[in-house]
Amino acid sequence: MTMEQHITDMAGKAKHACRNLAVASTAVKNQVLGDVARLLNENKRQVQGENAKDLAAGREKGLSAAMMDRLELSDKVFNSMIGGVEEVMALPDPVGRISDMSRRPNGITVGRMRIPLGVVAMIYESRPNVTIDAAVLCLKAGNGVILRGGSEAINSNIALADILQQALAKNNINPDSVQVVDTTDRTAIEYLLQQEDSIDLIIPRGGEGLIRFVAQNSRIPVLKHYKGVCHIYVDKDADLKKATPIIMNSKTQRPGVCNALEGLLIHRQIANAYLPEIAAQFDRASVTMVGCPEAVSICPQVEPATEQDWGTEWLALKLCVKVVGSLDEARAYIETYGSKHTETIITENYSTAQEFLASIDASAVMVNASTRFNDGGQLGLGAEIGISTTKLHSYGPMGLEELTTRKFIIYGSGQVRD
Amino acid sequence: MTMEQHITDMAGKAKHACRNLAVASTAVKNQVLGDVARLLNENKRQVQGENAKDLAAGREKGLSAAMMDRLELSDKVFNSMIGGVEEVMALPDPVGRISDMSRRPNGITVGRMRIPLGVVAMIYESRPNVTIDAAVLCLKAGNGVILRGGSEAINSNIALADILQQALAKNNINPDSVQVVDTTDRTAIEYLLQQEDSIDLIIPRGGEGLIRFVAQNSRIPVLKHYKGVCHIYVDKDADLKKATPIIMNSKTQRPGVCNALEGLLIHRQIANAYLPEIAAQFDRASVTMVGCPEAVSICPQVEPATEQDWGTEWLALKLCVKVVGSLDEARAYIETYGSKHTETIITENYSTAQEFLASIDASAVMVNASTRFNDGGQLGLGAEIGISTTKLHSYGPMGLEELTTRKFIIYGSGQVRD
Repeated sequence: MTMEQHITDMAGKAKHACRNLAVASTAVKNQVLGDVARLLNENKRQVQGENAKDLAAGREKGLSAAMMDRLELSDKVFNSMIGGVEEVMALPDPVGRISDMSRRPNGITVGRMRIPLGVVAMIYESRPNVTIDAAVLCLKAGNGVILRGGSEAINSNIALADILQQALAKNNINPDSVQVVDTTDRTAIEYLLQQEDSIDLIIPRGGEGLIRFVAQNSRIPVLKHYKGVCHIYVDKDADLKKATPIIMNSKTQRPGVCNALEGLLIHRQIANAYLPEIAAQFDRASVTMVGCPEAVSICPQVEPATEQDWGTEWLALKLCVKVVGSLDEARAYIETYGSKHTETIITENYSTAQEFLASIDASAVMVNASTRFNDGGQLGLGAEIGISTTKLHSYGPMGLEELTTRKFIIYGSGQVRD
Repeated sequence: MTMEQHITDMAGKAKHACRNLAVASTAVKNQVLGDVARLLNENKRQVQGENAKDLAAGREKGLSAAMMDRLELSDKVFNSMIGGVEEVMALPDPVGRISDMSRRPNGITVGRMRIPLGVVAMIYESRPNVTIDAAVLCLKAGNGVILRGGSEAINSNIALADILQQALAKNNINPDSVQVVDTTDRTAIEYLLQQEDSIDLIIPRGGEGLIRFVAQNSRIPVLKHYKGVCHIYVDKDADLKKATPIIMNSKTQRPGVCNALEGLLIHRQIANAYLPEIAAQFDRASVTMVGCPEAVSICPQVEPATEQDWGTEWLALKLCVKVVGSLDEARAYIETYGSKHTETIITENYSTAQEFLASIDASAVMVNASTRFNDGGQLGLGAEIGISTTKLHSYGPMGLEELTTRKFIIYGSGQVRD
């Protein structure tokens, strides 16, 4: 079989298999998830044995310490993976939920029923725990799923897929509903992106290069974010006692993630007083700053920013600082350099807060809160499969509901159209 | 300027212009629509003069009578266009609507606010009235819009765009928010489909060839339906007094549209009695039938169907007839030959009705009602910009709400993440 045939075959099987899954009851789906958790527990040593092969190959290939860390299915990662499955079990099932029921003048009753999307393909890098996280979310929402993890995690992923399929089979759900692409050949991705007759959604997670490749080559809808260039705007009417902990939490709590702070905008009226104060905090936390000439002149720790520094996703203890004269100027900066991920204002002014919330275009817009809250768990969705900065279908963290769609249902009693 | 520069320039201008429109109040947007209606009235003769040029060119090119009919902006079409604008004015504005507000344990309040998508590009054929219908829906939802109509309607479309831009300018909204592609060069479409930095959604309307071309070449999300192959399944427990008017209405009320009936499935237990009855009705309405061997043997008017007849979108007074033994068999047929558009069951059996509603995958699933109800106006959305059989973002008729998305808004009081 050629690679193209192999991938087309996988996608077709997933499409066929997920028809049963789409109408499975919540009880059955939860039983599958319960069995996944149990089997993970029972087969931990065996899966870790497969993971050890990946780790050995990684060492040989000279993977970075960070990549090796992400690749390892340590006891801690294993337990958090099992905990994640149990969390998804506890979430309400969106499938079958009916909303917007109304009676039309001719007597037909119209409503909208939540249904699974169909087949979701996840394309991701290194972390093998994503295999379980993503699969159980897709399954709970009634979707088939095709998983294409990083080539460096291939043995771990095949072992985890085996557990997922065992749990499905045990509950009389076609195990083809979950499949892992069992080859490290990169052309597999290209063929996956062409299966528009079988796959309904592509979710890429990983570096910007991978995501751009997927977006440019897919014939199937893609939900993605390239990067998170998040800002905090400290308004002239800010309560600075709130500003400092929010800024420090946003920048330093976990600097390597997409909802971390990358740019700080400060209103001119408070810049002279506040910039040295926050700079001292940054110094203490080993955060370095690059900024506009005005920021540099106020604060000697700020290095002059080059044009390409603006809008950079640092993912490190570094950020851009800019002094602005108004909310309009802050908004123009965010429109130019932001990534539609997360934008926060610090202000006590009611009207300024409302204007910021209404007019800033980002997946999450906040007042007086850390950018780190843009996360499915923190915003109340339960687990998340990713964050979308695409506006179609879903904007922001995607949970179970975002893995479904709605069809119209019509209850008639013989009506015809005039 | 090259064509690529010209289109890139248009898209960039639309993106820039629609920022103001996105935050315009409902009152201002309704004033724009009111001015569109008024200007259409005042400039009717002049627009019809431009339309006459298109009609003359169409006659010279030998367009079919049906195409010439669609091209003409008669007094009747003009009035219905103006009526359509007034209808959209009266619809509630989805932008700014906040839903799902909840307080998280740490005290942040999370909600979701409806916002415009950004810039929508419509690619359509012949009918120039779509220019007004689509533009006012996009504008009311706060979106910029780029319209690329059929080359045969170019003069009409430019005249209509001029009216739209006048109405915008009069209300201090940047007129670049609405632009008509002022060239009949088809490469313009290809460049439009590559403006992923400026355009957020593509909606193609027209023949299957155009729509497939758009879907295959777009880097931007596309909402579309290729065709409507709609079925009615007459269950063994059907009330046949309801079945006949519903079937006749679905097939004959307007056979050339996407929600017309194309295939009739009849349960074996009632086929001997009912098929001759409905066939007599079809005869009277000049509807011809092709069917399975069983249907042919029951009813001499049914011609044997070839394999390629199944799943055909006839768009004419013709349909397929098939005898089936169960709901499962009907469902399998619909999965194979349907187009996920509209599927109806005729039954008095409660459990069969519920199972059909839950398990059939189509944008609208109905019990005891005409397939012709799958339409934004009929289902209560007000005007519609199209019907989607794509599951992402919107499935079924798309009204104002489907031209928006939701962002997360977070009201904090100094919270940081643990």
